Amino acid sequence: MKILVVGANGQIGKHLVKTIQESGKSIARAMIRKQEQASYFESLGAETSVVNIEGEIADIAKAAEEVDAIVFTAGSGPHTGPDKTIAVDLDGAVKTIEAAKVAGVKRFIMVSSFDTTRNAIQEAPDSFKPYVIAKHYADEWLRETDLDYTIVHPGALTNDQGTGQVYAATEVARGSVSREDVASVIYECIENHSTIGKAFQVVSGETPIKEAIKKL
Amino acid sequence: MKILVVGANGQIGKHLVKTIQESGKSIARAMIRKQEQASYFESLGAETSVVNIEGEIADIAKAAEEVDAIVFTAGSGPHTGPDKTIAVDLDGAVKTIEAAKVAGVKRFIMVSSFDTTRNAIQEAPDSFKPYVIAKHYADEWLRETDLDYTIVHPGALTNDQGTGQVYAATEVARGSVSREDVASVIYECIENHSTIGKAFQVVSGETPIKEAIKKL
Repeated sequence: MKILVVGANGQIGKHLVKTIQESGKSIARAMIRKQEQASYFESLGAETSVVNIEGEIADIAKAAEEVDAIVFTAGSGPHTGPDKTIAVDLDGAVKTIEAAKVAGVKRFIMVSSFDTTRNAIQEAPDSFKPYVIAKHYADEWLRETDLDYTIVHPGALTNDQGTGQVYAATEVARGSVSREDVASVIYECIENHSTIGKAFQVVSGETPIKEAIKKL
Repeated sequence: MKILVVGANGQIGKHLVKTIQESGKSIARAMIRKQEQASYFESLGAETSVVNIEGEIADIAKAAEEVDAIVFTAGSGPHTGPDKTIAVDLDGAVKTIEAAKVAGVKRFIMVSSFDTTRNAIQEAPDSFKPYVIAKHYADEWLRETDLDYTIVHPGALTNDQGTGQVYAATEVARGSVSREDVASVIYECIENHSTIGKAFQVVSGETPIKEAIKKL
């Protein structure tokens, strides 16, 4: 399988590309914004494609040519303003979904936020609200498509080393989860077609990731 | 007819409530954010309902009880940041659409931006982009509903006195239009069921508004 990782240069993205390359079964194509980000991915034997998520759907669709699955894990991050939140976390996600359709890629894994429901929007503190709204509409857009989607709702992200163990279910108690474990969760979603059409929350826990994803 | 005007305290909203009240045929219910905004509308004989568009769908639905049509003309305006753009122009609009469903109100007039297409997003200058994205998704959300919608795409808004004459069509050459004329256009949309399911651009022109809207 070939997997396009959109937002590959983010921390989850980097873990994910490594996991895919180390699987020996699949190849990652890292979609990155700048050519100078390529060396990490090239050293792993991954393909790279330089495309700005704020650009045209056609460019993202070109990056998605001949891949079997797309993972959206791009994010504007906490250091930019809500102008980038709406342009990347919402519009960038939707453009990637539309690019999947254009390129004929059915399988789509969305890395969302822990809770993107209407209630979560209403209860979010002002500073976090634009992000929750953006992720809410991106998830809604994906649900309305015919794509074989999975929506992953990770808890508070940490840079801890992965434990390989999580809790994953439609709803789990709020908690944290390492970016490395989230990358492993995404990889298992790609491997398990039983996750198609599902959305689930995931935090660190005590079930081996492979088993947790199979049981969803 | 009773018409809920969401964003009544905006300039288009004020003109619209006045137009509705002066028609002698319909009554406006002005949805406003603060009680102290009520006197203008009360002096026109309109009803008022104090609801914050950033609040719950249920509150907006309550304001929409027993009305025959809803006009969304709220906007965060140019003096707030993109955090408010996403919360008001996108999420506030969608919540109003959802509130219409809850309240069983079928007729919905959306006051949009001149061009909310994908191309308009891609070509917008950075400072304007969050607004175009927000309006794009609000319009898309409305199109996907079963509501009897009309989407009005006005040109650059001015505070000039209305001329009563416009150009209106699916696509017109870019131009300006007074807020007073936009209010008259909205009123004619409410009066003309032939505008249901249509989206059109409008700029100042040479066709009497009543005729321009009938011909759409």
